[in-house]
Amino acid sequence: MESDRTSSPSSPKGWGVNFSTPRNFVVKFRSKCKETFFPDDPFKPISQEPNGLIKTKKTLEYFVPIFEWLPKYNLQKLWYDLLAGVTITSLAVPQGISYANLASIPPIIGLYSSFVPPFVYAMLGSSNTLAVGTVAACSLLISETFGEDLLKKDPNLYLHLIFTSTFITGVFQFALGFFRLGILVDFLSHSTITGFMGGTAIIILLQQLKGVFGIVHFTHKTDVVSVLHALFTHRDEWKWQSALAGLCFLIFLQSTRYIKKIKPKLFWVSAMGPMVVVLVGCLVAYLVKGTEHGIQTVGPLKKGLNPPSIQYLTFDAKYLPLVFKAGIVTGLIAMAEGIAIGRSFAVMKNEQTDGNKEMIAFGLMNIIGSFTSCYLTTGPFSKTAVNYNAGTKTPMSNVVMGICMMLVLLFLAPLFSYTPLVGLSAIIMSAMLGLIDYEEMYHLFKVDKFDFLVCMSAFFGVSFLSMDYGLIISVGLSVVRALLYVARPSTCKLGRIQNSVMFRDIEQYPGAEEMAGYVILQLGSPIFFANSTYIRERILRWIRDEHEVVEFLFLDLSGVSSIDMTGMETLLEVRRILGPKGIKMVIINPRFEVLEKMMLSHFVEKIGKEYVFLSIDEAVQSCQFNLSTAKPEPCS
Amino acid sequence: MESDRTSSPSSPKGWGVNFSTPRNFVVKFRSKCKETFFPDDPFKPISQEPNGLIKTKKTLEYFVPIFEWLPKYNLQKLWYDLLAGVTITSLAVPQGISYANLASIPPIIGLYSSFVPPFVYAMLGSSNTLAVGTVAACSLLISETFGEDLLKKDPNLYLHLIFTSTFITGVFQFALGFFRLGILVDFLSHSTITGFMGGTAIIILLQQLKGVFGIVHFTHKTDVVSVLHALFTHRDEWKWQSALAGLCFLIFLQSTRYIKKIKPKLFWVSAMGPMVVVLVGCLVAYLVKGTEHGIQTVGPLKKGLNPPSIQYLTFDAKYLPLVFKAGIVTGLIAMAEGIAIGRSFAVMKNEQTDGNKEMIAFGLMNIIGSFTSCYLTTGPFSKTAVNYNAGTKTPMSNVVMGICMMLVLLFLAPLFSYTPLVGLSAIIMSAMLGLIDYEEMYHLFKVDKFDFLVCMSAFFGVSFLSMDYGLIISVGLSVVRALLYVARPSTCKLGRIQNSVMFRDIEQYPGAEEMAGYVILQLGSPIFFANSTYIRERILRWIRDEHEVVEFLFLDLSGVSSIDMTGMETLLEVRRILGPKGIKMVIINPRFEVLEKMMLSHFVEKIGKEYVFLSIDEAVQSCQFNLSTAKPEPCS
Repeated sequence: MESDRTSSPSSPKGWGVNFSTPRNFVVKFRSKCKETFFPDDPFKPISQEPNGLIKTKKTLEYFVPIFEWLPKYNLQKLWYDLLAGVTITSLAVPQGISYANLASIPPIIGLYSSFVPPFVYAMLGSSNTLAVGTVAACSLLISETFGEDLLKKDPNLYLHLIFTSTFITGVFQFALGFFRLGILVDFLSHSTITGFMGGTAIIILLQQLKGVFGIVHFTHKTDVVSVLHALFTHRDEWKWQSALAGLCFLIFLQSTRYIKKIKPKLFWVSAMGPMVVVLVGCLVAYLVKGTEHGIQTVGPLKKGLNPPSIQYLTFDAKYLPLVFKAGIVTGLIAMAEGIAIGRSFAVMKNEQTDGNKEMIAFGLMNIIGSFTSCYLTTGPFSKTAVNYNAGTKTPMSNVVMGICMMLVLLFLAPLFSYTPLVGLSAIIMSAMLGLIDYEEMYHLFKVDKFDFLVCMSAFFGVSFLSMDYGLIISVGLSVVRALLYVARPSTCKLGRIQNSVMFRDIEQYPGAEEMAGYVILQLGSPIFFANSTYIRERILRWIRDEHEVVEFLFLDLSGVSSIDMTGMETLLEVRRILGPKGIKMVIINPRFEVLEKMMLSHFVEKIGKEYVFLSIDEAVQSCQFNLSTAKPEPCS
Repeated sequence: MESDRTSSPSSPKGWGVNFSTPRNFVVKFRSKCKETFFPDDPFKPISQEPNGLIKTKKTLEYFVPIFEWLPKYNLQKLWYDLLAGVTITSLAVPQGISYANLASIPPIIGLYSSFVPPFVYAMLGSSNTLAVGTVAACSLLISETFGEDLLKKDPNLYLHLIFTSTFITGVFQFALGFFRLGILVDFLSHSTITGFMGGTAIIILLQQLKGVFGIVHFTHKTDVVSVLHALFTHRDEWKWQSALAGLCFLIFLQSTRYIKKIKPKLFWVSAMGPMVVVLVGCLVAYLVKGTEHGIQTVGPLKKGLNPPSIQYLTFDAKYLPLVFKAGIVTGLIAMAEGIAIGRSFAVMKNEQTDGNKEMIAFGLMNIIGSFTSCYLTTGPFSKTAVNYNAGTKTPMSNVVMGICMMLVLLFLAPLFSYTPLVGLSAIIMSAMLGLIDYEEMYHLFKVDKFDFLVCMSAFFGVSFLSMDYGLIISVGLSVVRALLYVARPSTCKLGRIQNSVMFRDIEQYPGAEEMAGYVILQLGSPIFFANSTYIRERILRWIRDEHEVVEFLFLDLSGVSSIDMTGMETLLEVRRILGPKGIKMVIINPRFEVLEKMMLSHFVEKIGKEYVFLSIDEAVQSCQFNLSTAKPEPCS
């Protein structure tokens, strides 16, 4: 194959377009697949290794990263990881209970979910910073999907369906990673995630007003209107004591955050904040015999480790669509959040994470989780940030958290049963306030109005409709934009920069000289069915707008990364339309893939090899000879 | 605005990147909208006209094209149009009856549909070749959508719902044209249409076996399996006389087509063929008193022009979803077919059609049609081809057809009531055989495997599932491909072509020299959320694959037509990753829109203006100075 290419005829100077035989389909297909699924070419170092034993070792290290970092582990790293692990445990307990509450499942499930999954992630995860845990947005989304009715009718079934959906999530994430479909996550853009997080934060904040005001009857709907309506129709249930306590807790938590903000070294103050709230809350509730006075608490928490739950997975056809919907939607969101967060912290530390490996790790974490009474886990922002600040060095901090969690489950769990709901609400509210990224939204508004629109559609969609609609609208808009990019690719007219052989956009460089008799256009992006009509119209318009007589149309295809049948037919159509007007079409610098297709479909034969040039300058020089004697070509 | 740009600082020679102030949002937004919706800038000649009267005249001519061509009309053109009009009428009668039969509506509706709509199109249409009429695919799709049950329960309601769906189609097409959303039609690619037409032809062909074998009980399902099953379970109803007659008719029709193929001048033989079949069929059926001998005929056809049907439009909520589905799906297909066909014939005659104007014309044609007992019409391939061959000059041939049709309806309609169904089946089969474009499919297979896949998915989807699923799968695949184009844009490494300042793909031009210490990459297509992860991985891989020490990474952005926030952040991320390795990132020739955004988001400030160059050659020259003394820059 290669020899075929290098021996192709080309002028001695190396100039001239390379019209060698196109590569065959299998070669092209393999190269395309590689680009699509293995852009980072992960197996290259492995396959280059001659020694079989080392090869096996490297493969193992690739698939199970713990084999890579554990042999290099030392006491100094352990010290940092120990510190970080204990810190994130102190966050994991209150967050676990709070988010389980948000998902309307027993609070102990939240604690279980911080025990098993961290061990799995420590084995397989490729990020050194990520801390495993449950997330607010997905917890709420789960309870929204399964709905209040089911919960009231059969709380056990409700819980089992959540385990099943966690299993589905795991399988889905694993499959995506295994088949290297990280590309799907790419379509959740940064703007969508910013808007979605902000919108979710708003609705979760409002949901917490239930806890803060101590309201018993509340709506399970999540949109702003329903929640505010429920809040004000149940004014009679408002309890000022509860509201006051909530406010105090919230002020306390916000001030610990403020301390962290001005003195980053004191991050542990903010990390311990929620634990303090829980402990103070428990103490108060215990001392004043809160439950007798109407203070709502978390309720009984049994000692003991995760019981197996594999026998509870239910694949009843009646609930399967619901389970799949919950599993896949939350899986996608959790994964996008986890990968994005893992990546941004890795960038700060100048490390790299592998999206597909992360997906496999998340997937196995959730599969095993669903067998051991855990629900959906991923890498939440708050925990990971605390982990990063605490100076974690390796995924060992997750192991430390798992061990601490085990101790909590074995000995301390019942202590937390006195936690008042108002305290949890304050913890959640404080976490949510940090997720509304005003600054980023304003930045988007200033730089890119469409990105801002995508962000706002997620934000308002989530707050006023529902979480899935908000997400769908926003992703839909992003996809429309991606399609618009290809459906309306920018074209521009080039002129010569004085005293050079460079040709640049005359709108961008007003000094560039247009050349009489020539229309030189630069096309960008692929030319294919979705934009060929547009490109034809646009080219013809450029020529129509010309005041002088046009003799040559130059199409600079340097920026055209691929072309399809419709695209080539369109270019031939343009040539046929211009032929009788005495305008000749010249193709400049078609890229590898484009030229191959042009040769295969006999496009080059039709327009003639002498009308294909390697650079604009060369084409101009060659055409200037013929300019005065130019005759219209017969069109094919 | 403009003066702001031209006075921007630039070196006296005109070189150097133009870092002038970005245009403001309104200017950019207007320019974007214009590119998206008015790529052909249709109002420019009108708005440039100073004289008010001429301006009004030009506007009128633009919107109602008959005002443009009628004043220039002469007797010679009339002669051609007369000939063409009569020829297409002879096709319109049998096709009208046949396709109405396919849609399970009274055959007279098919004749009505060739009377009113041609007049509307003649007023508003922009194609000189298109002949208006009903189409087989949409007729079948309509009957498939409304279904057998409804037809059996209430044939009147069935007919009224078809009028209503025609009305919806009209409104939809008009709206698309009015809001210049021709972009939607662009997503029905040539490959999809080829496959869809082929698949439809197959299922319509099979449906006709009912008529050919004279079967009474048959299925209304359209997929290949159901139809063949129905055919063979009703073997007892097969009539050999009918099959023999059908075969004779088919052979006759195919030989007229063959005559046309070898002697294009004798096109009228093939055009008259269907009419001959109908007349011979009528005569035989009349002479042998066919109906008494079990020959199925069309049945009573009343004399008289189209009765009004506006009072029958039913917007009953129960049927509305069905009506909308039928209206919009058939509207899209009919429009895509009509526009594609009008355009391909216009190209042959070196004329131009305006997609958006065509949509408005089709829309009004169907709206008025639905008020006057017509069903869905567009520009069918067979009629248009005959019209073209007959030498039509203007849309006047449609007027001639309309007048001929009026005469048929007023005086001759009852004659056709003896038409045997087997004759109609033969006519439809013969037409369908011409729609399976084997050659094109083979061509697609050779040139572009993905295009072939798109085509085949429509073909097999339509034949084995249903028409709408086939279409959806095929369009879905096309969209996935469009997204893949943007999600995995090709990047390539450039080398210097010997003795020149040109840099080209080293894979395409093996003679191009790589430069030690430099990695020069050309990026294509937009850089944005959907491909930024990929681009980052790919850039890092190019650098990892380098054997020598890399000091500079050049990113040639000439082919990058736009960038979003995520894209810019990705480039900064690449820079941060490479910084500590002593590799400096240099940006080459960012385009207008890209540079504007880079300035707005302070990207240029972050990387430094001195790292942005206008050409690779310039950047190389500037960097060669610093190469030996290069120090890693502090990364921001």
